[in-house]
Amino acid sequence: MADFIKGGVCAAQGFQAAGIHVGVKTHASWKKDVALIVSDVECTAAAVFTKNVVKAAPIRVDKAHLADGKARAILANSGNANACAPSGEENAMRMCAAAAKAIGCKTEDVLVSSTGVIGQRLNVEAIEDGMPELRAALERSAEASDAAAHAIMTTDTIKKEAAVETVIDGKTVRLGGIAKGSGMIHPNMGTMLCFITTDCAISPEMIKAALLEVVRVSFNRISVDGDTSTNDTCCILANGLAGNHPITAADQAGYTAFREALESLCIKLAMEMASDGEGAKHLIICDVSGAKSVESAETIAKSVISSTLTKAAIFGADANWGRVLCAMGYSGETFDPDKVAVCFSSSAGTVKVCEDGRGLAFDEDLAKKVLSEHDVQIQITMDEGGASCTCWGCDITYDYIKINGDYRT
Amino acid sequence: MADFIKGGVCAAQGFQAAGIHVGVKTHASWKKDVALIVSDVECTAAAVFTKNVVKAAPIRVDKAHLADGKARAILANSGNANACAPSGEENAMRMCAAAAKAIGCKTEDVLVSSTGVIGQRLNVEAIEDGMPELRAALERSAEASDAAAHAIMTTDTIKKEAAVETVIDGKTVRLGGIAKGSGMIHPNMGTMLCFITTDCAISPEMIKAALLEVVRVSFNRISVDGDTSTNDTCCILANGLAGNHPITAADQAGYTAFREALESLCIKLAMEMASDGEGAKHLIICDVSGAKSVESAETIAKSVISSTLTKAAIFGADANWGRVLCAMGYSGETFDPDKVAVCFSSSAGTVKVCEDGRGLAFDEDLAKKVLSEHDVQIQITMDEGGASCTCWGCDITYDYIKINGDYRT
Repeated sequence: MADFIKGGVCAAQGFQAAGIHVGVKTHASWKKDVALIVSDVECTAAAVFTKNVVKAAPIRVDKAHLADGKARAILANSGNANACAPSGEENAMRMCAAAAKAIGCKTEDVLVSSTGVIGQRLNVEAIEDGMPELRAALERSAEASDAAAHAIMTTDTIKKEAAVETVIDGKTVRLGGIAKGSGMIHPNMGTMLCFITTDCAISPEMIKAALLEVVRVSFNRISVDGDTSTNDTCCILANGLAGNHPITAADQAGYTAFREALESLCIKLAMEMASDGEGAKHLIICDVSGAKSVESAETIAKSVISSTLTKAAIFGADANWGRVLCAMGYSGETFDPDKVAVCFSSSAGTVKVCEDGRGLAFDEDLAKKVLSEHDVQIQITMDEGGASCTCWGCDITYDYIKINGDYRT
Repeated sequence: MADFIKGGVCAAQGFQAAGIHVGVKTHASWKKDVALIVSDVECTAAAVFTKNVVKAAPIRVDKAHLADGKARAILANSGNANACAPSGEENAMRMCAAAAKAIGCKTEDVLVSSTGVIGQRLNVEAIEDGMPELRAALERSAEASDAAAHAIMTTDTIKKEAAVETVIDGKTVRLGGIAKGSGMIHPNMGTMLCFITTDCAISPEMIKAALLEVVRVSFNRISVDGDTSTNDTCCILANGLAGNHPITAADQAGYTAFREALESLCIKLAMEMASDGEGAKHLIICDVSGAKSVESAETIAKSVISSTLTKAAIFGADANWGRVLCAMGYSGETFDPDKVAVCFSSSAGTVKVCEDGRGLAFDEDLAKKVLSEHDVQIQITMDEGGASCTCWGCDITYDYIKINGDYRT
């Protein structure tokens, strides 16, 4: 079992971080807009990117830089997505070159990420000019990880940061991550950035396998508004300083322990993202059980958490379970609607509202209380098989519209 | 060419309509909640229903009643969807029986529709008790069609009603329709009801073919919030009183004229629905051209009009074209993003904001003016082929959240 610890991306041995304001965000000089994460030694590295056909320039650069499965640093900016923007790849490469020069490594060992407005030229000069200050701010501390976590935020209202510790071959192995994601989060990597560091010794093949497995059951099971972004990136650096016997195959005990620790970390960060959906007042946890397969359960749970009408009902603390059934029904999955049961539950209690596909009489006052809690669970039971899945989403609020009605200015 | 005329569902010869309050809507005694449309003689009939796996009881009844391709009347209520509700089919059948008795036809010649809250028992007694009054209110007049159009409204803010006239075999043929639809409208028949009457003489096979063809290019190209409903129904009655040579094959000139008239009618009603999306302030018209196929153009256009972020940008009159490209990118279609151009246009002018997949400098003041009009066009040009498609949607506003945050009370 992995235990949660402090320290974020600086929890693992041999990692330093920094986050400062250099001027990419022009309207808010007090807001950090560039983050740097550096390992003392070369790392095995892997990443998962957006499936959007329109891909931001940094993603194209990162793919090339990850061809050898190695990297040493991650440089990220907020305030500009460097997507559909003039000189996109050139500017992404200039970011890598500036970081490489500052820390003394090859340009190809730097990964780069951007998040913010699409279609405007990135002020790469500000990042280049700020590099000495960013380099000077690097340190291995909880504060440094915190600064980096803040520097990648856009409309996020809370920073997302977590770290876990596990034991492999008698050695303490740590994993830490920072993430951003608020609007546009959706299954298949809606705009989210997540940077993970670990001191585990693990081969490029196995770190990639672990990351793919874990992203599928964490970040790909959240949704804020159904839009997926041009910039989504989840990457991991592993520097091996924990001294465990290097993981090179999936049947090693160490691999299972590592994968479980990574899963705990990513589910924690994913839930924080869903919970911080733009303007969101509620985290919605949708559990589907009795499905014919995990895929079927996941499709149904995602349809429910993505339904704008269900999200609006949760915002209003309205036990409108008909919308839950309706969203299940248009998910594309087949099931017997006459064998569906639905409960709403939270720390305030549990209300069963539907059984055998029909409405039950229920205590409306209790339902209101249950749905007024921050974390609200929608529990769906079907009679199709033994598979289950949990997905996470959030409600839709006036503030979502406000935040997104005029984002560019 | 079909010309728009007055009269709604009473425009065609031999049709009467009525709309009154009987008590299904308990919170608003002044709001009509039951509509009846009756033909003087038996009609050929066809319908298209929701693809949602969870289907309301009236839909199951209608499918049985349409097995012979004949019908004489449509009875519809608002205020309760009779979906996932106790005694659903029994109550839908009781509605048919009551109407059949009142107008003197077979129960199987009555079609039934319901719209409103899911999961609560329908007050069918109120409909039965109100039947004599509803029967007495039947007449062939623009006022009667208006009353029926109002009686099927739920959160709709404007009634949807249209009629067209064309000439087939030297005979004047009229088609008229009423519709409701506001929340949950989406491609593949989100909660919408549409009832069409015509005096055209046409076989059951050909009226079904025409309806399927036309629904695909009208109602299935609109979206309000991505949710599709349990109750969607579009049905048509044709009583043959126009006296044209009966249409029995697709290669008859009459069929083309009829189909075109039906298309004009349905596109008009579909645009009114999109325009009246819950809380909407803008109609969004998305034109995609240069696509490799109509299907590809349609998938891309639907992805854009369904994107919550694009809808929020139009609400804010923000020329955030990056979100348009982003929505194109996650549509599932492949295309070269570097060959995409985007314009925003309206009666206030046209602003080109993106060319070759890159942002252009544009006049922000003009863009604001263009996007402040009610009808806003998003024109997307690609370089994949010669196909094009238009889809219709609306913006998302504070009022959408308000309307849907507490719908049941």
